Amino acid sequence: MNLITIRELYKNKENYVGKEVSVGGWVRSIRDSKTFGFVVMNDGTFFETLQIVYSDKLINFAEISKLNVGAAIIVKGLLVATPEAKQPFEIQAADVTVEGTSTAEYPLQKKRHSLEYLRTIAHLRPRTNTFQAVFRVRSLIAYAIHQYFQERDFVYVHTPLITGSDCEGAGEMFRVTTLDMENLPRTTEGKVDYNEDFFNKETSLTVSGQLNGETYAMAFRNIYTFGPTFRAENSNTTRHAAEFWMIEPEIAFADLQDDMMLAEGMLKYVINYVLENAKEEMQFFNQFVDKGLLERLHNVATSEFGHVTYTEAIEILEKVNDRFEYKVSWGCDLQTEHERYLTEEVYKKPLFVTDYPKDIKAFYMKMNEDNKTVAAMDLLVPGIGEIIGGSQREDDYAKLTARMAELDLKEEDYEFYLDLRKYGSTRHAGFGLGFERCVMYLTGMANIRDVIPFPRTVNNCEF
Amino acid sequence: MNLITIRELYKNKENYVGKEVSVGGWVRSIRDSKTFGFVVMNDGTFFETLQIVYSDKLINFAEISKLNVGAAIIVKGLLVATPEAKQPFEIQAADVTVEGTSTAEYPLQKKRHSLEYLRTIAHLRPRTNTFQAVFRVRSLIAYAIHQYFQERDFVYVHTPLITGSDCEGAGEMFRVTTLDMENLPRTTEGKVDYNEDFFNKETSLTVSGQLNGETYAMAFRNIYTFGPTFRAENSNTTRHAAEFWMIEPEIAFADLQDDMMLAEGMLKYVINYVLENAKEEMQFFNQFVDKGLLERLHNVATSEFGHVTYTEAIEILEKVNDRFEYKVSWGCDLQTEHERYLTEEVYKKPLFVTDYPKDIKAFYMKMNEDNKTVAAMDLLVPGIGEIIGGSQREDDYAKLTARMAELDLKEEDYEFYLDLRKYGSTRHAGFGLGFERCVMYLTGMANIRDVIPFPRTVNNCEF
Repeated sequence: MNLITIRELYKNKENYVGKEVSVGGWVRSIRDSKTFGFVVMNDGTFFETLQIVYSDKLINFAEISKLNVGAAIIVKGLLVATPEAKQPFEIQAADVTVEGTSTAEYPLQKKRHSLEYLRTIAHLRPRTNTFQAVFRVRSLIAYAIHQYFQERDFVYVHTPLITGSDCEGAGEMFRVTTLDMENLPRTTEGKVDYNEDFFNKETSLTVSGQLNGETYAMAFRNIYTFGPTFRAENSNTTRHAAEFWMIEPEIAFADLQDDMMLAEGMLKYVINYVLENAKEEMQFFNQFVDKGLLERLHNVATSEFGHVTYTEAIEILEKVNDRFEYKVSWGCDLQTEHERYLTEEVYKKPLFVTDYPKDIKAFYMKMNEDNKTVAAMDLLVPGIGEIIGGSQREDDYAKLTARMAELDLKEEDYEFYLDLRKYGSTRHAGFGLGFERCVMYLTGMANIRDVIPFPRTVNNCEF
Repeated sequence: MNLITIRELYKNKENYVGKEVSVGGWVRSIRDSKTFGFVVMNDGTFFETLQIVYSDKLINFAEISKLNVGAAIIVKGLLVATPEAKQPFEIQAADVTVEGTSTAEYPLQKKRHSLEYLRTIAHLRPRTNTFQAVFRVRSLIAYAIHQYFQERDFVYVHTPLITGSDCEGAGEMFRVTTLDMENLPRTTEGKVDYNEDFFNKETSLTVSGQLNGETYAMAFRNIYTFGPTFRAENSNTTRHAAEFWMIEPEIAFADLQDDMMLAEGMLKYVINYVLENAKEEMQFFNQFVDKGLLERLHNVATSEFGHVTYTEAIEILEKVNDRFEYKVSWGCDLQTEHERYLTEEVYKKPLFVTDYPKDIKAFYMKMNEDNKTVAAMDLLVPGIGEIIGGSQREDDYAKLTARMAELDLKEEDYEFYLDLRKYGSTRHAGFGLGFERCVMYLTGMANIRDVIPFPRTVNNCEF
């Protein structure tokens, strides 16, 4: 079907004004008098709508006038400029074909709906202004991330989703199985017999692609992952989902400084891409969702990010300990209240906090010379706190195995990972960006359920 | 660290020849005499290698000469043109720093290894020529697909991986659960009590994002998915994996013709992108993996694809039924032997077969006026057979529910899907492309285990 998109009409209007065009879309509102009427339509390709004027010269004038919000129509007509009106042009319809009607029961009538209600109709909510904006921007952010890494010749690696290892804490993982639950096979000892399972062993859904990603960085030098990860945490908060997407770049012949430069470059690139390519949507968020959004993002895109060590940060925070619910002291993990104070009130810009105590960070992080801290970094941003976490990796076989022994991790569970330290080990580093956190940050949306098309959270797996 | 990539040296050599450069990479081979030696190194950013000449003027000459294949080094030195040699330039090393040694036990010594063996060291195989080529091309194909759709303003939708519906056949799905397998909670009737499970119900891993994708096409008009899908099929073949990635575009205000144009455009775009951006890798595949590859791909990229209806195709095939293992007759499904005969011997180019009997296709496909066939299409390509399958969707509420009743599908399991036919239904269509099939097709690799970084198949979930 040869239909022009509303995006194309807005982007290149000089090519279409004064000409006959055909468009297809959905009725957002309709009003009519005895002899003519107006339809506001949206075709999903652009945030703005298109006004259609139709008159009783059309043989189906009555049919059109009876349409409900949500109906699908195809309109042919002359595109005329309307310099005196709010919208730049409208179509004077010569023909209106009804593709599909709607009814008075259509849940998205003109009135405003709460976000809570819209979550119950996740299959229809992308037709509203808010979710048109959210999910177009989500798509653009995803593409900007790919573009950033691909332009720098990073190799995109699909790390596995189903995993036989439980290296990051089995308690929070989802089990994957094809065993007959009503009739589980048993070993002679009476345990569940996973030899009968699809993979011949216990398997779960991954919580991170990092360890697999490192193997590819040691072959391609610069790689990134972008895929789903899973947490079976019983956290019913606005920031946790059981299924979400992560970006995990990993760079070889690189240290923590390179890692921070990569993260800073990526965040600025993505912000600029979205400000450039989703102007209407970003204006909408700034106006209706989060008033300070554009100023905050412009600030991030143009600041040189700050740097502070964890130890320095603790000194800063201890001076104002009375304002915090959780008091800080060296060795404690930073809470969102501390992170936001640092980035919003002290530095007033994005801030890398580096060199955390080893005991609050993962086993694979590179030990610093003080033997107390590791070469880790968290990026804190105003309005949210931590958005990225990364580190240089321990590339020394002896140090890594010693640390694993301290933490009671078994070497045989990490054989492939240790091989990387046996054969051509080199400095390398990486970070993780929770994709949904990033979407929340760039749109100002406050609940993770509103930036995932069909969110999965505790007790909720609808659609 | 300020290291230049080997890719950059090759792409812009005029900027570097005659200058001092620093590079980091891994030793592919090394040979030395008493006073000088050669290292061939690869840094993973480019298919070609870089030759390093070093001499006994370096204080660590002996250390370098003892290096094993696989060691990681950083080299500083003068890049000099070598017009008389095979390679365009080499580095005369002024400094060689050993980042990480390797040992004689390193599994990737110079000799050739079988693909079967390399599968057992999936964490190291990306360091070989073959897998450097495969996984860089895999990355480029993924990006080309995003680029194709994003340039056309399609919205990228992340459809859910964990699903509470079993709309496409529960027998082949993986169950997802957090129940204690050794001690399953039971209902008063003695059944497993899924009310105690994480999502309060039975859940599985998705086999397709299409139904969810359709809801977004009815909001954004043009969308695509690109994400993992899962099959718990007990098929131990070279073409089946339990976890693989799929691309599923969906377009509204569009019919089967539009769908085929989109598929043809995408495939040509991706082929051209890879031929352009992975010249060295594609030459390698053509020379060492699949002799006719480049000719076949050029042919696909420049042909206008053929079109034939299923009914016409059966007439063609029936005439030569004696050459087939499976004899055809109207109503049967096409096997690979039939598909390849049509595309390779009859049409000698990619071929769309359309309008299949309704009984061999899914319930959601649009019924044709003959009431016997549906508006489905399969794209067949020389050398492989089917690579894409798609259809126009049934957008008529009455026809769709009637077909569901014939197939004993319960309306309550498809409420959100049926809503799309109640509120502003319109012609729409889409297709599915198995990403790994596409990678196999473009690289000539014959086994799906060799185009997935860490493949998951029956009884195999390593790394």
